[in-house]
Amino acid sequence: MEFDVVHAADILGRTPATLSALLLDVGDNWARATEGADTFSPFDVVGHLIDGEETDWIPRARIILAGRRPPRFEPYDRFRHRSRNAGRTLGSLLEEFRGLRDANLQLLRSWDLTPGDLELPGEHPSLGPVTLAQLLAAWVVHDLGHIAQTVRVMAKQYHAAVGPWVPYLPVLTDHEVPRS
Amino acid sequence: MEFDVVHAADILGRTPATLSALLLDVGDNWARATEGADTFSPFDVVGHLIDGEETDWIPRARIILAGRRPPRFEPYDRFRHRSRNAGRTLGSLLEEFRGLRDANLQLLRSWDLTPGDLELPGEHPSLGPVTLAQLLAAWVVHDLGHIAQTVRVMAKQYHAAVGPWVPYLPVLTDHEVPRS
Repeated sequence: MEFDVVHAADILGRTPATLSALLLDVGDNWARATEGADTFSPFDVVGHLIDGEETDWIPRARIILAGRRPPRFEPYDRFRHRSRNAGRTLGSLLEEFRGLRDANLQLLRSWDLTPGDLELPGEHPSLGPVTLAQLLAAWVVHDLGHIAQTVRVMAKQYHAAVGPWVPYLPVLTDHEVPRS
Repeated sequence: MEFDVVHAADILGRTPATLSALLLDVGDNWARATEGADTFSPFDVVGHLIDGEETDWIPRARIILAGRRPPRFEPYDRFRHRSRNAGRTLGSLLEEFRGLRDANLQLLRSWDLTPGDLELPGEHPSLGPVTLAQLLAAWVVHDLGHIAQTVRVMAKQYHAAVGPWVPYLPVLTDHEVPRS
């Protein structure tokens, strides 16, 4: 499918409600569960998405649109949320994420990006040259991947409980070696 | 995590709102997209979950609770939805799923299952002996797996659009060979 900024913003706008439907008041045994050492819990995922709103997608789009030369992005800290959100509740993070996302989508829509804007160059610290369209498409896929991770982590908490059903439930054996 | 029927019903109750947040009015280019031949689109997933409400989880729990000897389940048709839902809209399927799920959870809660009930035996046509607890845990994991599938299928529509970001977005390369 070709990238379309109106469609992309629509999908991005769905993530706060999706995560709230899955996670609000779910209890720490689900929200703090992981797939093993150094993997994200659902709580961590929401914190990581907040970090994305504050330090990744829109800040990088601004660097591209400002025409800075070179248009090099700041490296992104995947673990910023760990210290930032110590002591926070999941409910407060979900609400904060919704507010940040809403504001960022309002900004994105206000830019009214043209096809020419979407081809403007950025420079990723490790991936090299990218375009604004690729950055925005990656934002969408990043959201969807972390929703998949959230439900996969929850599913795995019932790996033993399903007994003989394991081979019919592939989500239980996805990412046995962490991939992100 | 040990199986708990109250927790399980809570998670099961979240699926209709989660899928509606992701999919309602999303447009056919997302809702009818797949991962390739003979794989489910998001539209198919909702139809398959409706089939589960009508022919799988609660009907099998009833067989177990009725004490039929042997307590053998009917085989389950993974493709019933294909003919059943021809011509339907995604919005109407999402609404139907919500109604069926709500009624099934009301029934499940009305049973007020005891630890002894949860150990009652069933017989799966290919997996063999199972318990009611395992059946209900599999229902939860089945939901979560199909939510993961839904967002994975959507994410893959932007595989080309993200350009060099592919290695940082593992959801794009999950299930390159269909696993379910």
